[in-house]
Amino acid sequence: MRHYQAVELTKAYRLLNHGPTTLVSSAHAGRTNVMAASWAMPLDFDPPKVVVVIDKSTLTRELIEASGEFALNIPTRALAEATLVVGSSSGRDHDKFAAAGLTTFPAEHIGAPLVDGCLAWLECRVIPEANNEARYDLFIAEVVAAWADPRAFSNGRWHFADQEQRSVHYLAGGAFFATGQAFEV
Amino acid sequence: MRHYQAVELTKAYRLLNHGPTTLVSSAHAGRTNVMAASWAMPLDFDPPKVVVVIDKSTLTRELIEASGEFALNIPTRALAEATLVVGSSSGRDHDKFAAAGLTTFPAEHIGAPLVDGCLAWLECRVIPEANNEARYDLFIAEVVAAWADPRAFSNGRWHFADQEQRSVHYLAGGAFFATGQAFEV
Repeated sequence: MRHYQAVELTKAYRLLNHGPTTLVSSAHAGRTNVMAASWAMPLDFDPPKVVVVIDKSTLTRELIEASGEFALNIPTRALAEATLVVGSSSGRDHDKFAAAGLTTFPAEHIGAPLVDGCLAWLECRVIPEANNEARYDLFIAEVVAAWADPRAFSNGRWHFADQEQRSVHYLAGGAFFATGQAFEV
Repeated sequence: MRHYQAVELTKAYRLLNHGPTTLVSSAHAGRTNVMAASWAMPLDFDPPKVVVVIDKSTLTRELIEASGEFALNIPTRALAEATLVVGSSSGRDHDKFAAAGLTTFPAEHIGAPLVDGCLAWLECRVIPEANNEARYDLFIAEVVAAWADPRAFSNGRWHFADQEQRSVHYLAGGAFFATGQAFEV
């Protein structure tokens, strides 16, 4: 059983606002891929936009440029090892979903698959900005649909169930932080 | 006594990689300001670059456009209330440093002041990209110097001392997460 429900588009930025590590999934002409990206963040509220850095050398870059689409998936701590695996190998060499033990389900509005077991998913369509892409590997996209596991995010708020079902924040060299204690000021 | 030491520029991205909320400080012609920004992230390793979203309506935008410089300061949980204060009022109306009880010290390479009590500081010079700034409020900058409190970050690694001296991740409506448990995979 899959746990996901639609997130109101004007609240989609809240899925990324705290700076979690993401998985970028992509597809084109029968090929699919997934990579890890820490460098993804919101760019606007309504319509929601995001920015993400996608290196020129990657298969993901090729698939995004060909399709104009990608998904940002927000993995749990339970998926941290898989996140590291898909962040440190190339989809040109092997099927990274299989290598990392990841399965997927179809997105609603884009061709890129969504990764099972994640906390949230943002379906994105690239807003072409050739200078940014060529010079900085920086992609701007509009979020056309957003989903979250209602056990972790509902009514515009995160409420993580336990230590394994939290988002994560990558540092370097296999080191992560879990998202920590919630507090209000 | 101030606690800060230089961070090697090639490791500066690690100050932001986990997605903490930042304070953006700026100065021009005798005016200074500070605002909160969750939408800031690394863009490149070497030379280190960052992107940050700065709304057109802000005094910070005016000071950054005039000076071509800003600093990203990484506040502690102990500064979360001050972060909310400078994130929800305008420097056009009053001195936000005073309103939030923030004091500063001089940067080394830029005119913008650095905020006392933060965990780390990135001195940034704007790389002009008029289309991004006008269309998306998105600024690209090179990090020309970086500093960290060695009690929290040294040798390229974060090692937070206690619950109050951690970085924070803003969600919305006064709700934050503290940076949580470190783990390796």
